Amino acid sequence: MTDVVIAGIGQTEVGEHWDIGLRDLAYAAIHDAVEDAGGLKPQSLFVGNMLAPNLSRQAHVAVLVADFAGLNGIEAVTVEAAGASGGAALRQGYLAVASGFVDVALVVGVEKFTDKVGAGVDEALATTGDADFEAVQGVTPAAQAALLMKRYMHEYEVPADGFAGFALTAHANGVANKNAMFRKAIKAEVYAKAEMVSDPLNMFDMAPNADGAAAVLLTRRELLPSNYKNPLVKVAGSGASSDTLALHDRKDMLFFDTAHISAGKAMKQVGLTLDGIDFFEYHDMFSIFAALQLEAVGFAIKGSGWKLAADGSIGLKGSIPCATMGGMKARGFTGGAAGVYQAVEATIQLRGQAEANQVRDARFGLIQSLGGPASTSVSHILQRLDQD
Amino acid sequence: MTDVVIAGIGQTEVGEHWDIGLRDLAYAAIHDAVEDAGGLKPQSLFVGNMLAPNLSRQAHVAVLVADFAGLNGIEAVTVEAAGASGGAALRQGYLAVASGFVDVALVVGVEKFTDKVGAGVDEALATTGDADFEAVQGVTPAAQAALLMKRYMHEYEVPADGFAGFALTAHANGVANKNAMFRKAIKAEVYAKAEMVSDPLNMFDMAPNADGAAAVLLTRRELLPSNYKNPLVKVAGSGASSDTLALHDRKDMLFFDTAHISAGKAMKQVGLTLDGIDFFEYHDMFSIFAALQLEAVGFAIKGSGWKLAADGSIGLKGSIPCATMGGMKARGFTGGAAGVYQAVEATIQLRGQAEANQVRDARFGLIQSLGGPASTSVSHILQRLDQD
Repeated sequence: MTDVVIAGIGQTEVGEHWDIGLRDLAYAAIHDAVEDAGGLKPQSLFVGNMLAPNLSRQAHVAVLVADFAGLNGIEAVTVEAAGASGGAALRQGYLAVASGFVDVALVVGVEKFTDKVGAGVDEALATTGDADFEAVQGVTPAAQAALLMKRYMHEYEVPADGFAGFALTAHANGVANKNAMFRKAIKAEVYAKAEMVSDPLNMFDMAPNADGAAAVLLTRRELLPSNYKNPLVKVAGSGASSDTLALHDRKDMLFFDTAHISAGKAMKQVGLTLDGIDFFEYHDMFSIFAALQLEAVGFAIKGSGWKLAADGSIGLKGSIPCATMGGMKARGFTGGAAGVYQAVEATIQLRGQAEANQVRDARFGLIQSLGGPASTSVSHILQRLDQD
Repeated sequence: MTDVVIAGIGQTEVGEHWDIGLRDLAYAAIHDAVEDAGGLKPQSLFVGNMLAPNLSRQAHVAVLVADFAGLNGIEAVTVEAAGASGGAALRQGYLAVASGFVDVALVVGVEKFTDKVGAGVDEALATTGDADFEAVQGVTPAAQAALLMKRYMHEYEVPADGFAGFALTAHANGVANKNAMFRKAIKAEVYAKAEMVSDPLNMFDMAPNADGAAAVLLTRRELLPSNYKNPLVKVAGSGASSDTLALHDRKDMLFFDTAHISAGKAMKQVGLTLDGIDFFEYHDMFSIFAALQLEAVGFAIKGSGWKLAADGSIGLKGSIPCATMGGMKARGFTGGAAGVYQAVEATIQLRGQAEANQVRDARFGLIQSLGGPASTSVSHILQRLDQD
């Protein structure tokens, strides 16, 4: 099969963009991605969006974006899988290009949290759970993550500050990322004193909701412009999986089956084992998610994912660098854009352009996007290609 | 390229299912589709849904559906393109199977309008337009269609009852469709006396919002079970296109560019001209949409689409039979399920199982799904395959 490459990338600063709408955010990312790709024109647009129908009273987002970007005529479709919407849109774009049906696909993730405030955001986020059996009881994603974290800490005797390493690493890596929402390193004492959101989950165990858009332009290698300048990055593997929507229906809620299955599918496609993965962009919406993903993918045995954060293994020079540009904790959680930010950041790493955040000799990066408590998981492996 | 066939179909009755939820509706259609396909197991699920985040406070619908159907583990993603969500989901499923990445794809359309009532439904429907420039002014899809119809009638000097033929044909064809919401033929006098919704658009110029789910199971021909019994129907062509989200941004609002482009792409893929199309399932959410689609696809010249309804050409024995099982007008408009209902009904026609509604010697059917005022259009051509 022909190589599907990431020809261009774009991203906006992540933060509270009170005065910028969905369409403007998306366009900024598209503009940069198209320019970065040397002007390649897409035929299809796949938009990852999670909550605009509730946050912004706007459905049909893909057409809103295509229209404002002057792309009238092209195919435009919105892909939704809760927090994994960005990863799912990337996968649809990848399938379209790999299949030969589409030559150039534009994948855009966009979310605008600040169109709502306070309880309106929590209500919108709760729609990603089971409306009839979870949301109606008032279970928000954060409350649910806290229950998961409490059970994990009890089961595996994790100390109170056991999860601190996830936030410390993310914030340390966010400092040099000019698009990150938080660019300030934090100390262990800050984590220890942080306000509780839902015991035992504190303010630093959870990523901030933020506005942002990210875009990647996918094409087949042979279709790149002759003057193409960027180091080549390939989408080498792709996998997706779903589990029960509600956490209470799982046989074992402390193992993220979908994270295991989707990463396994992507690795199998590449013919890669864990040793070959140079960095891992997990879905650290909550620190407990990061720990469970490290275990599900296989970097740690069950109950010990948190130790990789505590002992520095997930640092830029550790055995498996994670959240290398700040992750969701420091960059910000951009809803349906989150999975596309992962792809953009991984591409920067694989191009060798991550500067202070560069993972040395990065050749394969694993990115993983989750929807709900891993009710959906979409994994991709991006690969640096050697060039003549 | 290998043939992608519709191995199984399923649909629920269309109507007001006050006591049945999203997941139950979807499951009923899936059950029938899997059984019809001889038990084929899908690896990927593409759900077309338009408004559940607002109507049912439920996002992440694909996982809700996969979970309830006992399909945990499979890829599950929601595809949204307003009223074209069903057509767009069908296209994603088709691309996944045609590409070889997926062997069996399940495409489900589902919508549950009765989770909201009255203004709540109008508010939800308005999210499919431009939130900042249309919905905020109170423009609902029906009000917009009325403006379009008024302009058309003025421009082409259409008499007051010029659109009656669309409703009369749909209702006549709905009588024998046991899944249709309205199974009663109407007379011209009834149309003439109908209550206005938004002048000149009356109650019979518009399809009723309704609950329902439809499903098709797609696979490659060689993967069909050895005991497969149904006549073979192939997805022969597929095309999609987008236009401005807001009607006021069109150069010519009386020509549906996307309907022209998407149908053209699908026909080009098959190598088919208009003469070869035996019936057309249009997106008759509004009678004016039906007229404009007949013109955009090429069955009528500009300004004369309504005449095909007035002179009986769209009847079952006419030159281009439309809404052959009642269309959206009589079957009901099922939101993100509408495009999948079209695929199910076209398959029944092509299998030769449409009984009283059978289009004689039907070999090629064109189905077209619209989002907004053709801001999105997705077209497919289904083909009856000759068997040994």
